Amino acid sequence: MLQQRMDEVRAQVEAALDTAMSALPRGELTDAMRYVCLGGKKLRAFLVMESARLHGVSDQAALPVACAVEALHAYSLAHDDLPAMDNDDLRRGLPTCHVQWSEATAILAGDALQTLAFEMLTDPAIGSAETRVKLIAAFAHAVGPAGMVYGQMMDIAAEGAEIPLDVAGITRMQVAKTGALIAFAAVSGAMIAGAPSEALRVYAAKLGLAFQIHDDILDVTGDEDTTGKRVGKDARAGKATFVSVLGLDAARAREKELVEKAIAALQPYGDEAGNLKELARFVIDRES
Amino acid sequence: MLQQRMDEVRAQVEAALDTAMSALPRGELTDAMRYVCLGGKKLRAFLVMESARLHGVSDQAALPVACAVEALHAYSLAHDDLPAMDNDDLRRGLPTCHVQWSEATAILAGDALQTLAFEMLTDPAIGSAETRVKLIAAFAHAVGPAGMVYGQMMDIAAEGAEIPLDVAGITRMQVAKTGALIAFAAVSGAMIAGAPSEALRVYAAKLGLAFQIHDDILDVTGDEDTTGKRVGKDARAGKATFVSVLGLDAARAREKELVEKAIAALQPYGDEAGNLKELARFVIDRES
Repeated sequence: MLQQRMDEVRAQVEAALDTAMSALPRGELTDAMRYVCLGGKKLRAFLVMESARLHGVSDQAALPVACAVEALHAYSLAHDDLPAMDNDDLRRGLPTCHVQWSEATAILAGDALQTLAFEMLTDPAIGSAETRVKLIAAFAHAVGPAGMVYGQMMDIAAEGAEIPLDVAGITRMQVAKTGALIAFAAVSGAMIAGAPSEALRVYAAKLGLAFQIHDDILDVTGDEDTTGKRVGKDARAGKATFVSVLGLDAARAREKELVEKAIAALQPYGDEAGNLKELARFVIDRES
Repeated sequence: MLQQRMDEVRAQVEAALDTAMSALPRGELTDAMRYVCLGGKKLRAFLVMESARLHGVSDQAALPVACAVEALHAYSLAHDDLPAMDNDDLRRGLPTCHVQWSEATAILAGDALQTLAFEMLTDPAIGSAETRVKLIAAFAHAVGPAGMVYGQMMDIAAEGAEIPLDVAGITRMQVAKTGALIAFAAVSGAMIAGAPSEALRVYAAKLGLAFQIHDDILDVTGDEDTTGKRVGKDARAGKATFVSVLGLDAARAREKELVEKAIAALQPYGDEAGNLKELARFVIDRES
């Protein structure tokens, strides 16, 4: 059930992103943008589409938001992977953007994907101009210098610091770096419908942390063929992660506890939130 | 008269940008964002404010747009100066962002400034939600993968190409790289007022090219103390510029001709457009 709906959303979003790219000038920039949007679970898009469905918002209205969230996420990956940042050469089982093309192309493709994300949020299909401006402001807040980019900056600062982050520090960093965009995705459907979003905000906060803890676990227990990215990097870099500070068993206990809290937060939605509940379980069962 | 108004706009915009930065978390990211927004002529902001004044739009409504345009421009400079791009170490008389801080910080400060620019365009002071969404869509189009970033990609591709660009090629590249944002700035006041913008669009097209030709001239005839940036770079890199393909005299004749056309385009506005006419003359008289 979950897998079917995730596949459906992934296909919808990939087709819509492809259509958007087809309207751009042909060349390496567009090719690179398309490349970094390829693959992945499209988990954030799934959150948008399910949040919309829960609030009676049509797929047609939610799709540009789902695409914007994935375009923004793709930009953040292209920039995070750069040599000056995390210096990663493998992502989603493929060479990272700067390896496949060049550093300049990866910087510009990321820049252009951020712009494209905002442009997609102006789509009249989403709703009234008021709704769109409200979404754009919330999106900017989630991904900008008080949100995602701030978290990435904290992450980089922590690597060079003498005292490694503790659990509270890692949590603060991840809430900004990955949590803010996940939260935006999860509440976006409620925002389009003008409905309260507090339950989804709590769900997303727990889900985002569980997701990150599981990423840290996979960096220790996973293999490159399955995860599609390099593993063991954090340990080699001496980087503080949920696993390095909690230990593997406590990290596993913590992610389970978070998933239970995420599911409990969805109680007001009853059975309608079945997919989101399944997603929370999937997040800590996944091997990639 | 022009100088006084330019100083006034620069002070307004720098104060408003400073206020925006003060609302962000303290740290290197915000410091770097502030740093790259410092200095410069704030020519694009001036275009926004004059375009607004010409159409009866208040300074209060236009200011967030002027700030957005300058924040976007500052991001483009921080990224263009990176080692993987133009590899510049001097800008506005100061070390470039990645020299002052680090490559990672320059990438993230640029990323965050792009986000901030879009966030500023959601400011209710600008006007109705319809007006803001219209501006955001036009802005995204001007600075994204069919506008500014596309032009920057063409510029980088040209450097590695076997056949240098001719005048038509340089013009196409610059229309996208620098012209699109200048055009957005110049028409933004008309857009806020819901007025026709064709005259300002023609003005901006001529002004933008004249501006670029003069930049190319200053790279040959200027000195670093006055321009605040390295000179002679294009020639050393064997890069095709308006000066390298036209020669210095023909480039000077061309910029004068463009400025006359820019001024002629403002005829519908009569004496009210005095500042914009003076600005066009200033653009090719300036020494920095």
